[in-house]
Amino acid sequence: MTIRVAIAGSRGKMGSEAVKTVCNREGMELVAALDYKHVGDSLAELEMFPSNLDVPIYTNLTQLITESKPDVLIDLTNPHSVYEHTKEAMLHNVRTVVGTTGFTDEQLEELTNLAKVGKVGCIIAPNFAIGAVLMMKFAKEAAKYMPHVEIIELHHDRKLDAPSGTGKKTAQMIAEVREATKQGHEFETETMPGARGADFEGMRIHSVRLPGLVAHQEVLFGGEGQMLTIRHDSYNRESFMGGVVYCVEKVMTLEELVYGLENIL
Amino acid sequence: MTIRVAIAGSRGKMGSEAVKTVCNREGMELVAALDYKHVGDSLAELEMFPSNLDVPIYTNLTQLITESKPDVLIDLTNPHSVYEHTKEAMLHNVRTVVGTTGFTDEQLEELTNLAKVGKVGCIIAPNFAIGAVLMMKFAKEAAKYMPHVEIIELHHDRKLDAPSGTGKKTAQMIAEVREATKQGHEFETETMPGARGADFEGMRIHSVRLPGLVAHQEVLFGGEGQMLTIRHDSYNRESFMGGVVYCVEKVMTLEELVYGLENIL
Amino acid sequence: MTIRVAIAGSRGKMGSEAVKTVCNREGMELVAALDYKHVGDSLAELEMFPSNLDVPIYTNLTQLITESKPDVLIDLTNPHSVYEHTKEAMLHNVRTVVGTTGFTDEQLEELTNLAKVGKVGCIIAPNFAIGAVLMMKFAKEAAKYMPHVEIIELHHDRKLDAPSGTGKKTAQMIAEVREATKQGHEFETETMPGARGADFEGMRIHSVRLPGLVAHQEVLFGGEGQMLTIRHDSYNRESFMGGVVYCVEKVMTLEELVYGLENIL
Amino acid sequence: MTIRVAIAGSRGKMGSEAVKTVCNREGMELVAALDYKHVGDSLAELEMFPSNLDVPIYTNLTQLITESKPDVLIDLTNPHSVYEHTKEAMLHNVRTVVGTTGFTDEQLEELTNLAKVGKVGCIIAPNFAIGAVLMMKFAKEAAKYMPHVEIIELHHDRKLDAPSGTGKKTAQMIAEVREATKQGHEFETETMPGARGADFEGMRIHSVRLPGLVAHQEVLFGGEGQMLTIRHDSYNRESFMGGVVYCVEKVMTLEELVYGLENIL
Repeated sequence: MTIRVAIAGSRGKMGSEAVKTVCNREGMELVAALDYKHVGDSLAELEMFPSNLDVPIYTNLTQLITESKPDVLIDLTNPHSVYEHTKEAMLHNVRTVVGTTGFTDEQLEELTNLAKVGKVGCIIAPNFAIGAVLMMKFAKEAAKYMPHVEIIELHHDRKLDAPSGTGKKTAQMIAEVREATKQGHEFETETMPGARGADFEGMRIHSVRLPGLVAHQEVLFGGEGQMLTIRHDSYNRESFMGGVVYCVEKVMTLEELVYGLENIL
Repeated sequence: MTIRVAIAGSRGKMGSEAVKTVCNREGMELVAALDYKHVGDSLAELEMFPSNLDVPIYTNLTQLITESKPDVLIDLTNPHSVYEHTKEAMLHNVRTVVGTTGFTDEQLEELTNLAKVGKVGCIIAPNFAIGAVLMMKFAKEAAKYMPHVEIIELHHDRKLDAPSGTGKKTAQMIAEVREATKQGHEFETETMPGARGADFEGMRIHSVRLPGLVAHQEVLFGGEGQMLTIRHDSYNRESFMGGVVYCVEKVMTLEELVYGLENIL
Repeated sequence: MTIRVAIAGSRGKMGSEAVKTVCNREGMELVAALDYKHVGDSLAELEMFPSNLDVPIYTNLTQLITESKPDVLIDLTNPHSVYEHTKEAMLHNVRTVVGTTGFTDEQLEELTNLAKVGKVGCIIAPNFAIGAVLMMKFAKEAAKYMPHVEIIELHHDRKLDAPSGTGKKTAQMIAEVREATKQGHEFETETMPGARGADFEGMRIHSVRLPGLVAHQEVLFGGEGQMLTIRHDSYNRESFMGGVVYCVEKVMTLEELVYGLENIL
Repeated sequence: MTIRVAIAGSRGKMGSEAVKTVCNREGMELVAALDYKHVGDSLAELEMFPSNLDVPIYTNLTQLITESKPDVLIDLTNPHSVYEHTKEAMLHNVRTVVGTTGFTDEQLEELTNLAKVGKVGCIIAPNFAIGAVLMMKFAKEAAKYMPHVEIIELHHDRKLDAPSGTGKKTAQMIAEVREATKQGHEFETETMPGARGADFEGMRIHSVRLPGLVAHQEVLFGGEGQMLTIRHDSYNRESFMGGVVYCVEKVMTLEELVYGLENIL
C-alpha cells in the first residue's frame, strides 16, 4: 500500500528537502502541499521544484484533505500553524508528523487527548536526526551504569547560543536517571574562569564554536580504567530526512500522540 | 546486609584485583579464597597481599563453602575449573560470578538447567568492562536504524590476533539485527589489498596495532548526512572491577543463569 | 595593489567556487575566464553565475592575456590543458596556480625549467585543503620521532578506490623519513583476512566507507605510554578555497615552480 | 660509544622509571645515583630495585662526578636542587638533562650563560612526552594558517587545577603566532555560564575531568569547510621515557642550554 503524503511548509528549507525525499521514496506518494498564501496551483509552477512536479498546492487544509485524501500530513511550519493544522487533521482522521518545538503544555495536552480519543497517530519530533536521537537515548541509558558524564557540543561559529538545544536536552535526559552529583575534584579550582564549562546538576557542558564545524556532539562517560564515548556528527539537512521517512511509516501504526523520536526507536 | 564473597583464582591478574576490590567495597566481605594447590593458609601469607589480609585459602570448594558460608563465588580461573566449581557451588546453593569464556555448549546447557532447577543465580561474563558491554549493546540497537556499520578496534602491538574478540562479538551481535548487505560502492576496488579491512556479512572490521595503545574500539554508523560513533577505551584492568562489583550485587537477585553482561544491563 | 586574476575551467565544480571566492576576496579582481569552447561572451550570460558578473570569457589564452592583463591564472581544468596553458602563461610572464595532478615527469621538468629561466612563479597543488596539507606535513615530521604509524582514511561510500589518494600520499611522505619496518606483533595473525589493512612499508592503511561521511583522515602515532593523532575533516569544497586564495597571494612572491602546498607552508 | 649516565632523584616516580629505562637501553650505562640523604651504598640495597642492580649511590655530586665520571646527569628532583646540581655539573663539564619547571628567570639566565661559556650541553624539559611536545609544536605552526582554535584538555578527576599546564602552554605558544581575536559569533551568549570555556586571547580552553581519563588534549583548528585536529593521549609515565632517552642522546651533541623539547625536535 502506498502512503499518501501531504506536506505543509514545502517552500522552507526542511520542507523542500521533504518534498524531494517523499517523491523519491518507494511506498510513498506526495499528493498535496499546504501553503499559508497563494503561490501557485501546483509545485510545478515554483522555480525551486522540477517543472514536472504536478502536486496541487492548497491554502485551506480542510479542502486539501477532502480533495487529496492524504494518510499523513508532514508539518514543517511554525508552532502556531502546526497546532491548528494538527487539530484539524486529527478531526479528519489524518495522521500528522510534526517537526517543530515550541508548543505550550496546554496545546500538547489537548493534542494528546484528541489523538487518544480519535485513535489517530501523531508524532512530534523536535529532532528528526535518528543518529542524534539514538545518541541521547544511549546516553541516558549509559548514565545509569556510568554516572560521571561530560558533554562536548561543537557547532559552526555562526551559532548564537551556548550550549546547544541538543546539549541541554541530553543533560536533562541524563538527569532523569542519575542523582545530581558534584563531579571533578572536591577542591578543584579554575585558574581561568569558565575552563570547567557549564554546570548542569554536576554534569559539565562544553560548547566549541569554530568555522568549518557543522553540528556535532560527544557525550563522555568515565569509569575506573575506562571511557565510553557516544558521538553524533550532523553534516547537512539530509540527516533529518531518514527520520522523516521513519516517522511517516511509523505513524501509520500508531493510535496516539508520541512526543520525541526516542520514544519510538 | 553484607554479601559474603569467595574468590577462586585470587593469585591471578584479575583475581588479585578482585581481592582488592571486594575488600574495599562497602557491603561486601571477602570470606575465603580458593586455590588449586596449597600456597598458604591465609592470603596474609602471600607476598602480593597486605600482611593483615587474614582470609583463609582453601584447596577444596566443598570445605570452603561449609566453613566460610559464602553467598557468592567469583571465579576467575579457567573454563575447566569454572565448570566444576560452578556445578558444585550451585548444588550448595552458592551463587557464582564467572569471568571466563570457553565453555562447551553442553556445559552451558547443563549449568543453565542446574541454575533453573535450583533457583540459584549465576552470571557468566566474557567481558566485565561495563563500558565495553554498553558499547556492544548500543551498537546492536543502533544497527536497526542505521545499518551501515564499520568497526575499528585498536590495541597494543603485542596482541597476536586480529580482529579482537570484542570486535568479532560486536559484529556478531549487529548481524543478529540486520541483514547481510554489501557495503561500499558496488564497483569499489582495493588498489592495495586489505585496505577495506575484514568482511563480516558486509560490515568491515579494521584492526589497528600500535605501541602505546591499550584496548579501544569504535563502532561507526553512517546515514545520509550524519554519523553515529560509539567508542570504548579501556586503559587498565581496573575497568573490569566495576563490572565484577555490579555482577556480585546483581547475582543476589537472580534465580537463573545469565550469559553476558549485556543481558542484565 | 589588487591582484588581477583569470580562471580557466570556471564552469566546473571547483572553478565556479573559485569564481565566487575571487570575486568576494578583497585585494583580488576577477578579470577574465578561459573556456575551451564558446559558451558566451561574459560570465553574466551563464545561468550558474549572477547576471551582473560582467567578466569576459575567452577561448584563446594569448588573447585573454593581451586584453585582460592578468597577474595570475588559476587553472582548474585537466592535466593536458593545464600543461599548455601554463607554458603559454609563463612565456607571457603570467603566474599560474594549478589544481590538478597527472603531469608526466617530462612536463613537470619542462615547466620547472621555464619558471626558473623566466623567473615566473607557478604553484601546482594536488590538494588545496590547507588542513589536509598540514596534516601530511606534520605526519611526516612526527614519524621521525614516533615511527610506528597507522593511517585511517574515511570517505563516503560512493568512492571507488581504496585507499584514497591522500592516504597513499601521506604514507609516501612518511616513508621518506623512516625505514620500512614491520609493525605489530612478530607472530600476529589475521583470523579474518584484511583485518590489519593494507601494508605500505610496514605502515597499515585502513579505508572506511560509509554513507554520511565526506572526506576524513586520521594518522595515528604510537609510542610507549602515549599516542599522537593528527586528523583532518573535509566537509565540503569550500575547504579548498582557502588554499586557492593562499596560493594566489603566495605565487606573486615566487620566481620558480613549487609542487605541493606543503613546500610553501 | 656508551653514554655514562647518573640519575638524581632515583627513588621518585619518574626517577625509578628512568633507572629502569637507562639500564635497559643499549648504548647507555647507569654509573651512579644521587640522593639527598643516605639510603644505602648501592641501588641493589633498595627494595624497589632488583638486588643485582649494583649502582653506587652518592649524596655528594662532586664526589659522584669524580668517582663515576658520568657523561650526563639526569636530574628529576626539585627546582632548587636542580639549579645547584646543574651549576656544579657544568663546572665539571658534565651535561645535564633536567625534567622540572619552576626556575626563576635569573637562574635560567645564569645557567644559560654557564652552558655557553663552558660549551656544555644542557636540556631543560618541562614535558618529556615527545607526542605532547609535537602536538604543541604543530599547533603553533597550524595556527599561522588556521587561526581559529579551541583547546580541549581531558584529565582524571583527581586533578586540582583547570586548565592544565599543557593546555595553557599550548595557548601561549599559539598566541605567539596569531593576533588576539574574538572567536565565535559577535553576539553569542551563554545561556549557562561557562559553556564557552575559558578565554585566552579569544581562544577557548575547555577542561574535562572524569574518572578513567589519564592525560589527554585535543587542539581543534576550524577553517571554511574543514577541521584540523591534533590530539595527544598520555596513558602512563612510560610516555616520558622516550623523551628522556632522546634528550640524553641529544645533549651529547649540544654546547649550550636548550629550554623545551620543542626546540630540539
